[in-house]
Amino acid sequence: MRITAPQLEKFCVEALTKVGISDADARTTAEVLVTTDTWGVFTHGVKSLRGYIRRIQAGGIRKDAKPKIVSEGPAWAMVDGESGLGMVTSTFAMRVAMNKAKVTGIGYVGVRNSCHFGAAGFYAAMAAHEQMIGIAMCNDIPSVTAPGARGAVLGSNPFSFAVPAGQEKPILLDMATSTVAGGKVFAAAALGKKIPEHWIIDSNGLPTTDPTIFPHAASLTPMAGHKGYGLALLTETLSGILTGAAMTRHVLSWSFAEPSLPTDHGAAFIAIDIAAMMPLETFQRRVDQTIREIREAPKAQGSDRIYLPGEMEWERREKALTEGIQLPEDVVERLVPLIEELSIDLNRFLS
Amino acid sequence: MRITAPQLEKFCVEALTKVGISDADARTTAEVLVTTDTWGVFTHGVKSLRGYIRRIQAGGIRKDAKPKIVSEGPAWAMVDGESGLGMVTSTFAMRVAMNKAKVTGIGYVGVRNSCHFGAAGFYAAMAAHEQMIGIAMCNDIPSVTAPGARGAVLGSNPFSFAVPAGQEKPILLDMATSTVAGGKVFAAAALGKKIPEHWIIDSNGLPTTDPTIFPHAASLTPMAGHKGYGLALLTETLSGILTGAAMTRHVLSWSFAEPSLPTDHGAAFIAIDIAAMMPLETFQRRVDQTIREIREAPKAQGSDRIYLPGEMEWERREKALTEGIQLPEDVVERLVPLIEELSIDLNRFLS
Repeated sequence: MRITAPQLEKFCVEALTKVGISDADARTTAEVLVTTDTWGVFTHGVKSLRGYIRRIQAGGIRKDAKPKIVSEGPAWAMVDGESGLGMVTSTFAMRVAMNKAKVTGIGYVGVRNSCHFGAAGFYAAMAAHEQMIGIAMCNDIPSVTAPGARGAVLGSNPFSFAVPAGQEKPILLDMATSTVAGGKVFAAAALGKKIPEHWIIDSNGLPTTDPTIFPHAASLTPMAGHKGYGLALLTETLSGILTGAAMTRHVLSWSFAEPSLPTDHGAAFIAIDIAAMMPLETFQRRVDQTIREIREAPKAQGSDRIYLPGEMEWERREKALTEGIQLPEDVVERLVPLIEELSIDLNRFLS
Repeated sequence: MRITAPQLEKFCVEALTKVGISDADARTTAEVLVTTDTWGVFTHGVKSLRGYIRRIQAGGIRKDAKPKIVSEGPAWAMVDGESGLGMVTSTFAMRVAMNKAKVTGIGYVGVRNSCHFGAAGFYAAMAAHEQMIGIAMCNDIPSVTAPGARGAVLGSNPFSFAVPAGQEKPILLDMATSTVAGGKVFAAAALGKKIPEHWIIDSNGLPTTDPTIFPHAASLTPMAGHKGYGLALLTETLSGILTGAAMTRHVLSWSFAEPSLPTDHGAAFIAIDIAAMMPLETFQRRVDQTIREIREAPKAQGSDRIYLPGEMEWERREKALTEGIQLPEDVVERLVPLIEELSIDLNRFLS
């Protein structure tokens, strides 16, 4: 199904306001989800809308929540999301981090009582759009094992950063700290395919190529072994431990846990104000130079291009904004029941 | 060869002061290198001393350098290392970051005109010892390729962090953003062994199991593909681009480049003052709880223990401090010519 970004945003706003979310919060959420879809990251876009709305209806996501700064200092703040939408809390928190950075050079904002926040990269990119370096991360329920363990001990705790360039697009990385996202394992299972040996371990803690046992009898592996495990712990520290949010197994699943319960996800946002430290044009020129040197490096046999982190996403977005977003079948399948449940007249958005 | 940590430090101080380094700077450098050896990270300890001293003698590392803050704001500073020893500049810079964090909550310090700084983890651990979260990283000459490239485009740009605990040892991760360090490839070549297919690529950009072609006709692979490549770019941004240091291929090799030339490495240090944000005891309890939950998780078949990042290093250090450091043969081989060149009487340190 093809739909324009403004149409899809309008649809999200309609759906969210129908279940009691304020217009402003609905717009914020719609912007996060639809931007993510324009990047082609369909696992973290409007696909999740029905799950969020189920929790809103059951009370686990509070519709009247207002994220609040509960403590702060010159270069940091702690934000309580009051169990509201993760997208609303997180855009608020990154904005606070950027305001702190404007004054002191760098700002760290921790978040508690949040929920699933979609794609971490959206918040990192917020900073890059205002010529700052942005870093965003969160914790999640354990789905990833550690070297030596047989089960999940940490979430796939994503880590993301964005760096503004001059004439080039911002560098943007958004990665899970697991080898692959769980969605890739589900996809292989749905297609009846085997998976590479290093993606998951079975209930004995041993490698397996069978995707059908995930997640009930399998865990994801950390990317690059002890390195991904370590980075997930940094993300847990800044998002969960230091913020007072739920930690590791104490976080609830935003999609599977009883929907009337708050999930208490934590998150962390860092902004660095480039212009305080170096003339912005100098920085932009240096980033452009680095990007071009990498892009123009000799190519591997069989490769005709070296991508910078985020380059594919920015190109997909440009295409989506001119040609519309081609929503994959699995996303449409999630939206159809929502459209019916909320009695939304789809024709109003597709005209 | 077995030697106590104080003996090894004394030896380092003697060697460094013999070539004109001040007593204070020699002590700082000795502490960094010997602490690294007590962790069992012998690739980054006193093994490098002869290389540093060769550069000091030739002038590429300036013996009279004094790291200076050249610009600063409430929560950040830029430090010029004046081409001095990387260990001296980096301990100074992390100290500045911690002082900034004490006032504002978080401090970022960028460094230019530095040199090889040894193990990034040392500086992260400095913060943890004072109940702060520490992050340390640097750039380096390209040795790692990017997806789609056939040669090296970025350094193995290490990233390190440390988190203080309560009764437990600090969490400490120090990782290269390449799949493995170049040293592992050299080691396999020396033993006449093949290496796994994903460690390096040959001059066509294709995987190879032949370690003997590295580095003249091969590059390291980034850890976890695009993820390690992306993280190396973050490290490059904070250490090189934003600081005014040399970037990527413009950095000189501290061990191979003409020793009279400064290498102009960049580095970055971040400290977060926990106590400003959460009662320290609460934080320590939460870290201890997380550590213990992971440690006590069910073990994989064939595994009897789950290590926390840094746990092996702290245990090795404890042993080294009571039983002495067992220096590997390759480290001793590097020190012997140094002892001869500088006419150091080794018996003075081994009594």
